[in-house]
Amino acid sequence: MEKFVIIVAGGKGLRFNSQVPKQFLELDHKPVLMHSLEAFYTYQADIHLIVVLPADQVNYWVQLCEKYQFPIRHQLVIGGDERYYSVKNGLDLVPINCLVAVHDGVRPLVDQTTIDNCFSMAATEGNAIPVVDLTDSVRELQADGNSLHVDRQKYKLIQTPQVFESTRLKEAYKQGYSSHFTDDASVYESLWPGTIKIVEGNRQNIKITKHEDLIHAESIIRYRRNKV
Amino acid sequence: MEKFVIIVAGGKGLRFNSQVPKQFLELDHKPVLMHSLEAFYTYQADIHLIVVLPADQVNYWVQLCEKYQFPIRHQLVIGGDERYYSVKNGLDLVPINCLVAVHDGVRPLVDQTTIDNCFSMAATEGNAIPVVDLTDSVRELQADGNSLHVDRQKYKLIQTPQVFESTRLKEAYKQGYSSHFTDDASVYESLWPGTIKIVEGNRQNIKITKHEDLIHAESIIRYRRNKV
Repeated sequence: MEKFVIIVAGGKGLRFNSQVPKQFLELDHKPVLMHSLEAFYTYQADIHLIVVLPADQVNYWVQLCEKYQFPIRHQLVIGGDERYYSVKNGLDLVPINCLVAVHDGVRPLVDQTTIDNCFSMAATEGNAIPVVDLTDSVRELQADGNSLHVDRQKYKLIQTPQVFESTRLKEAYKQGYSSHFTDDASVYESLWPGTIKIVEGNRQNIKITKHEDLIHAESIIRYRRNKV
Repeated sequence: MEKFVIIVAGGKGLRFNSQVPKQFLELDHKPVLMHSLEAFYTYQADIHLIVVLPADQVNYWVQLCEKYQFPIRHQLVIGGDERYYSVKNGLDLVPINCLVAVHDGVRPLVDQTTIDNCFSMAATEGNAIPVVDLTDSVRELQADGNSLHVDRQKYKLIQTPQVFESTRLKEAYKQGYSSHFTDDASVYESLWPGTIKIVEGNRQNIKITKHEDLIHAESIIRYRRNKV
């Protein structure tokens, strides 16, 4: 099946006085978002890439692509107010009967094994999302304000790319928006409960939401280089 | 109330061919474990510190203290096969009617606010454990092999130091060992359900269990320096 990737790059706008969104910050000599795109081009050179950006960030991104001599082989789509609408807008460009991955633009360190795990499982099972173990103990907050120790082995942390057979994901996105839709798997399982398939992700596939995450990402890149 | 700290340094032994336990690896010019101790000495210079080590690591640690000219103002206790027994051995040196913090030796980056949050809350409420929010989505594995999206805001990641009124923690540690005891709060609440108090921890208070965590810790130290 043909493969599409929707890369969702949200973040704050570029208005006066606001900070540069994390996807545009430089990581190892180029913007975070370019790393995310390259991970998928490395996986398959002719993969269909769709980048969803807020309207007021499109020009800036195009300028960045020029500055870093990054060829624009991807389609650009304008995002919505919520991640849900951004993905939905990206999905409009995806045909039925193919595989579509939805990936956070601020996860530049997804590794090739994770991408392959997701596409391979989704090709046979209809969907796949990458997960990693929790490394700390976990407590669940109770309604009465107390908290309860829970078995952390029963929980998994969810990453992206989340990959789906496109006909079904497009169908799932016909549901109206709900604040419970925090990722694509939750949109999908709202229509088809109990059908989400999990595969092994990679711990280094962190989401860059704070400046210190960028420092962490840099350290991971150095670590990978020294290991090779 | 007087304050005691039990620092639990487990890890693999120092036998032939095994790797050096993470608490002894160098982080910013000194072993990880020294950072953990210094965090508490910085909080209160005359705090009572008890370090629990596997029997075959004691000599190595004493040699490290000499090498790095790190004054041994702490008591040394031999640990057991499980973390539970290590803490129990440390608790034998702690009097009743004081506050006792139990801290992972491989969490060198605990900040002063976290330590103070824990001791302050425990002084009035009898216990306190530091928690941080989950930054990724979470799924709960079901008995049937499926997984279910859960509201991540209902869950907290647990760190150390976990601080308790010592009479009660010693009492809790009179219970026999259970594999469900993954931290001190779980031992404590097994006797007194629903009584654990949570306070804000710090995200950078990571547990160093893999080599890449050490690289991460170094990046956090650099980040802190540049911020100042």
